[in-house]
Amino acid sequence: MYHINDKSYKCSVSVTLDIFNDRWKLAIIWHLMKDAKRFKELHECISEITQKTLTVKLKELEEKNIINREVFAEVPPKVVYSLTKSGEKLRPVLNEMYHWGIDYVKDYGTIDETEVCDVPLDKEPK
Amino acid sequence: MYHINDKSYKCSVSVTLDIFNDRWKLAIIWHLMKDAKRFKELHECISEITQKTLTVKLKELEEKNIINREVFAEVPPKVVYSLTKSGEKLRPVLNEMYHWGIDYVKDYGTIDETEVCDVPLDKEPK
Repeated sequence: MYHINDKSYKCSVSVTLDIFNDRWKLAIIWHLMKDAKRFKELHECISEITQKTLTVKLKELEEKNIINREVFAEVPPKVVYSLTKSGEKLRPVLNEMYHWGIDYVKDYGTIDETEVCDVPLDKEPK
Repeated sequence: MYHINDKSYKCSVSVTLDIFNDRWKLAIIWHLMKDAKRFKELHECISEITQKTLTVKLKELEEKNIINREVFAEVPPKVVYSLTKSGEKLRPVLNEMYHWGIDYVKDYGTIDETEVCDVPLDKEPK
């Protein structure tokens, strides 16, 4: 068994799923893969989320060691979120999900080029 | 936007997440990656699930074109589930999830070698 804090898993794939088992967490990780972001910038990227929910999801990802929260002593205080080493390692997972999703839509759905927010994540940002 | 049936997605990663957004579906796909299985065999692999829930999840995955359901005219009827071409293409996604999960547990958890059901899925079954 795999044990992390108070949870046990039979399968390491389930461990990974537990990190981004909701759309919001996945979106946060995705946007932080491009670059580190302030709370306000993240909220602009994921405009459908409420501030309250975004705060909760960021906290959960921080507790799971997927993102860093850095506070700069400015007025008003500047808070910057970035991926940890573990978070950064999710890049190939999301990259495979990205490509599979495109293939699947080509086979069974339709693509309307407007409002698509995807960019391939094969490479790390400069 | 990406459109599949009545749902729309801004992001192809979300399309993929929608396929295995629950542990049971992920487990079913995982076990079918090893080989095609009958209902009873799948239920033995995923013993924690109820028969009713397994039936629902299989139906959903069939509707999403991830698995095939083949009925053989025997007495009693033999029903075999296997991955479709799209389902088979999920192999690299699950493979990356598998490896990330192991890494993550090594960093932040503990591994107890008993009852681990993982096998690497890098290669297709013979």
